Amino acid sequence: MTIAIIYGGTRQNGNTETLTEHAVQGIVAEKIYLRDHTIQPIVDMRHSEDGFQDRNDDYNSLIDRILPHDILIFATPIYWYSMSGTMKNVIDRWSQTLRDPKYPDFKNKMASKKAFVIAVGGDNPTIKGLPMIQQFQHIFDFMGIEFGGYILGKGNKPEDVLQDKEALFAASQLNLQLKG
Amino acid sequence: MTIAIIYGGTRQNGNTETLTEHAVQGIVAEKIYLRDHTIQPIVDMRHSEDGFQDRNDDYNSLIDRILPHDILIFATPIYWYSMSGTMKNVIDRWSQTLRDPKYPDFKNKMASKKAFVIAVGGDNPTIKGLPMIQQFQHIFDFMGIEFGGYILGKGNKPEDVLQDKEALFAASQLNLQLKG
Amino acid sequence: MTIAIIYGGTRQNGNTETLTEHAVQGIVAEKIYLRDHTIQPIVDMRHSEDGFQDRNDDYNSLIDRILPHDILIFATPIYWYSMSGTMKNVIDRWSQTLRDPKYPDFKNKMASKKAFVIAVGGDNPTIKGLPMIQQFQHIFDFMGIEFGGYILGKGNKPEDVLQDKEALFAASQLNLQLKG
Amino acid sequence: MTIAIIYGGTRQNGNTETLTEHAVQGIVAEKIYLRDHTIQPIVDMRHSEDGFQDRNDDYNSLIDRILPHDILIFATPIYWYSMSGTMKNVIDRWSQTLRDPKYPDFKNKMASKKAFVIAVGGDNPTIKGLPMIQQFQHIFDFMGIEFGGYILGKGNKPEDVLQDKEALFAASQLNLQLKG
Repeated sequence: MTIAIIYGGTRQNGNTETLTEHAVQGIVAEKIYLRDHTIQPIVDMRHSEDGFQDRNDDYNSLIDRILPHDILIFATPIYWYSMSGTMKNVIDRWSQTLRDPKYPDFKNKMASKKAFVIAVGGDNPTIKGLPMIQQFQHIFDFMGIEFGGYILGKGNKPEDVLQDKEALFAASQLNLQLKG
Repeated sequence: MTIAIIYGGTRQNGNTETLTEHAVQGIVAEKIYLRDHTIQPIVDMRHSEDGFQDRNDDYNSLIDRILPHDILIFATPIYWYSMSGTMKNVIDRWSQTLRDPKYPDFKNKMASKKAFVIAVGGDNPTIKGLPMIQQFQHIFDFMGIEFGGYILGKGNKPEDVLQDKEALFAASQLNLQLKG
Repeated sequence: MTIAIIYGGTRQNGNTETLTEHAVQGIVAEKIYLRDHTIQPIVDMRHSEDGFQDRNDDYNSLIDRILPHDILIFATPIYWYSMSGTMKNVIDRWSQTLRDPKYPDFKNKMASKKAFVIAVGGDNPTIKGLPMIQQFQHIFDFMGIEFGGYILGKGNKPEDVLQDKEALFAASQLNLQLKG
Repeated sequence: MTIAIIYGGTRQNGNTETLTEHAVQGIVAEKIYLRDHTIQPIVDMRHSEDGFQDRNDDYNSLIDRILPHDILIFATPIYWYSMSGTMKNVIDRWSQTLRDPKYPDFKNKMASKKAFVIAVGGDNPTIKGLPMIQQFQHIFDFMGIEFGGYILGKGNKPEDVLQDKEALFAASQLNLQLKG
């Protein structure tokens, strides 16, 4: 069982990263920092004759790094009560990959994976982050991905999340689970 | 009472646009098509000494077009059970504008507005679009914006939404309300 | 296709009833007014040796009236952001019926039905009623019932809902659909 | 700071009770077992000339036991993705108490309290229990009650919840918080 982490935050060593590193301590994982990559928004060409065009950015290379792994961790700060716009752009592009002849097995491969969400926010995340969790549930359901669970941490300033004992404990439990 | 529409879709004359145009028929409105603009994702510098840096894109010019209006319509196709990544990037950037000395009254000005959401999706939007509506509620609550209402339409292929009688009726009702 | 309406309100001719009658105008329907019946709360005996005991109330007779129909309309005022306690008690009792040898086909029979929810509330129902809709979705999913759609009306004082043009229109559309 | 626990379950020593007792270990608390009381559903008489009538049941005596306390714990098994019908009936009756001359300060007194929710369910409670949490949020917001937090535990058969390490840890953390 191998793991890929998709980091949606824009700040190095942000709270989401701190919490996620806690969850994967001692485990090898492919870590994808979206902030280091250029990802274009989708251009919806589903109903155009020409179909989708190559966007000439880093998106496909990220998909290539994600696909080999069994477990995906979506680690995002809660920006405005959901995942970061950058992470949303990655997921929006899945609509293109689902129709991309270069990835004929995209949905099947994704459907064999298990996903976790780790998200830290400053404004009452265990309540106001719930629509985001429900959104992820719909996303995973559509793709056939098993939703393994989520951790909602509280934090604003760097290292705040280290005070969130429940989130840290949940991360330790996830660590044990990932170590199998 | 003047109106600005923020269009989050990437397709010209998509279903969301069709439905929204129905709602503003006969009304002058500032129409902002995000697809025609370059908007960088936010880089969170709240906790950096240097603070936020100018992103040299079209974002500020869009804010300048939005701010004078009393009513905002967020018109987005439902991509993966929420607003498009492009629209999310715009909202993420509000965190920067809230701290931008060039916009000292940003929050106050936004708090005097009333917002509507119009969104069209193909996968059971009146159920699976609900987390998005709850997310918008949290966004508007944070900013002090009054949430005037929303319309969730059903459609996939171009013009599908013209078959959604309830969405069209709701758009007509909104039209009457906007005409005051 | 025959229809049963489960009325959860306690007031005669309340707004929920007004709106629902609009939806079934000209259609024969079995109308079950829970307020006219005694329904005991469930006593969870799943893990007791003796199992569930007969509760000697009207519940089974209501189930007998519901089961023959193809379409169920759950019509409830929104009390405290969800269905009435009386309607909840009926649904809670399904846990007993699922294990009741007198109803060996309960789940299968329910799974062949299509359900609608009609609910009227006074406090921002199209936003604050959404968790109730999501709860119904989970309920119907568990039973395998198809969720045909819902109408959230606004009203407080008797006949208020007649001012909610969108809810009335949605009820008319449902009426056409039910007349098939 | 004193505590009242409102137990909504029908089974003695059910999982919800086990988890809640963990949270209040070593703390004196007023424990109200709804299953031991008769609580009639509300009859909505807000718009009747006669107004609400006394229901001649145990409800008022429960309110009398709840009101003196600073902290309320709503402890309910998750029945059909929300609180038990019995607990819902108690909350529905608040609409009557809000208009009851015998309780002129009901809302003010409730508004000074802090509430927690502890709920255990068998069917993916950390996902499918979320609409219930959102419903409680709306309930507490309406009354002006501070929502202190919630614990969603997993369990079906008696004592199952003892395997839910995260829920137990959260209960221990709540215990520390309540001990102040």
